[in-house]
Amino acid sequence: MFENQSRLIVQWGDCDPAGIVFFPNYLRWFDDCTSALFAAAGFPLHILFRAHDIIGVPIVDVRVSFKISAAFGDDLLAKTSVSEWRSSSFVVQHHFYKADKLAVEGFVTRVWTGVDPTNKGKMKSRPVPREIVERFS
Amino acid sequence: MFENQSRLIVQWGDCDPAGIVFFPNYLRWFDDCTSALFAAAGFPLHILFRAHDIIGVPIVDVRVSFKISAAFGDDLLAKTSVSEWRSSSFVVQHHFYKADKLAVEGFVTRVWTGVDPTNKGKMKSRPVPREIVERFS
Amino acid sequence: MFENQSRLIVQWGDCDPAGIVFFPNYLRWFDDCTSALFAAAGFPLHILFRAHDIIGVPIVDVRVSFKISAAFGDDLLAKTSVSEWRSSSFVVQHHFYKADKLAVEGFVTRVWTGVDPTNKGKMKSRPVPREIVERFS
Amino acid sequence: MFENQSRLIVQWGDCDPAGIVFFPNYLRWFDDCTSALFAAAGFPLHILFRAHDIIGVPIVDVRVSFKISAAFGDDLLAKTSVSEWRSSSFVVQHHFYKADKLAVEGFVTRVWTGVDPTNKGKMKSRPVPREIVERFS
Repeated sequence: MFENQSRLIVQWGDCDPAGIVFFPNYLRWFDDCTSALFAAAGFPLHILFRAHDIIGVPIVDVRVSFKISAAFGDDLLAKTSVSEWRSSSFVVQHHFYKADKLAVEGFVTRVWTGVDPTNKGKMKSRPVPREIVERFS
Repeated sequence: MFENQSRLIVQWGDCDPAGIVFFPNYLRWFDDCTSALFAAAGFPLHILFRAHDIIGVPIVDVRVSFKISAAFGDDLLAKTSVSEWRSSSFVVQHHFYKADKLAVEGFVTRVWTGVDPTNKGKMKSRPVPREIVERFS
Repeated sequence: MFENQSRLIVQWGDCDPAGIVFFPNYLRWFDDCTSALFAAAGFPLHILFRAHDIIGVPIVDVRVSFKISAAFGDDLLAKTSVSEWRSSSFVVQHHFYKADKLAVEGFVTRVWTGVDPTNKGKMKSRPVPREIVERFS
Repeated sequence: MFENQSRLIVQWGDCDPAGIVFFPNYLRWFDDCTSALFAAAGFPLHILFRAHDIIGVPIVDVRVSFKISAAFGDDLLAKTSVSEWRSSSFVVQHHFYKADKLAVEGFVTRVWTGVDPTNKGKMKSRPVPREIVERFS
């Protein structure tokens, strides 16, 4: 299974008055890590989307478990991979470590989405191209 | 079960290049709706936290299901309630409707948290005060 | 001069570890207030953009002066107006009050922008339609 | 003059429906770059704040000029330095380059701020320690 690792430093503006990361920021990082994963696999999303006439990979399901909080200046290691490929969607698995301990675990289901050919104002899921699935296996 | 309703207008900056809400923003709104729920119950969090010497109500688990996307200018109705009280944590249930249809459903588990009396630099969960639990029943 | 007023409650996630609003959020609110201004004038931007084939009103200049900080739970009154119309741009003036005192003052210069007809991948400024300028006078 | 350089990749969630960076994100990056500047100078802010009993370096003035827009996948080079030291405040100068061209220029005035000794609930500016000013010269 193809995996990418990124390093994140928790920034001042990522944290709330309790001094810890405001949780929606983890979801933003999940998105950034997904882009980094595809780029590391040789498919930078901003190019891939154009090449396949894709609007984006919107999310249909998110599950996150927060085990250890992180604060300004903390160094996080993010490990990202696709844990499951379905016909037109896939599950991205995120593990964030703080000092070698699992701090956050998330699973995000995303859909390969283009413009609906029968209604330009709508979006429609599409089969994930085989070359992409194969690259990640 | 005590429920609060809020109305949200999707803003330009909430949306991504696909023209739909960038999903971490829903989590931010969940947080805002939780504050609005407590305020509506007579317990504004910024006062409640100080009164009970609480640092915050950090999140330990999030589950969200996205059913209908929303775009700039869309009007969302948010219904928020506590679906479960445990000794020192509780589950906040979020339902966002777009034109009467369920668009987003989320469950967020939060912990009633103060400073650890044995280690000022750490946080520690505490029992949720009975008056709060009773008010929401 | 046409002015709109909005009320904002500072949310938990808007604040940083110092317990005050993380300053980029004011800029986000400036954007939301600009949308509210146009909607109040009878020109909701999400409709206006489509009607005039406009991509957006990107920012070219921002000047903000922060006088009083705001914290979680604070109630802010925002007054928004267009202080100057130029041929293809305009300056939006923002005043945020906290308990009747001026807390933040900002000036944001925005450009009325469409797709460049000679290069679909580029953006190009356009004259602001006269009906809009007149409505705000 | 001590200067730090950082590299930024524009992320999907940083961009708006026009496909370009939503401008408040530049202000967030200014903040991150300021932290990176101090860290590069040997004064990581999260340690410096604790050592000097500082709450933060809140902003009193921001001036930004946006010259070239940036989109998802764009690579930005940020150059950050302190352009002026005053007794209890300083001006951080930000230049963001896209493909060697100046894209964004910003000046942010920040105040060295602690708890007001006469009122624990208030903040008060303090003289910037000489060792810090000297390190940056």
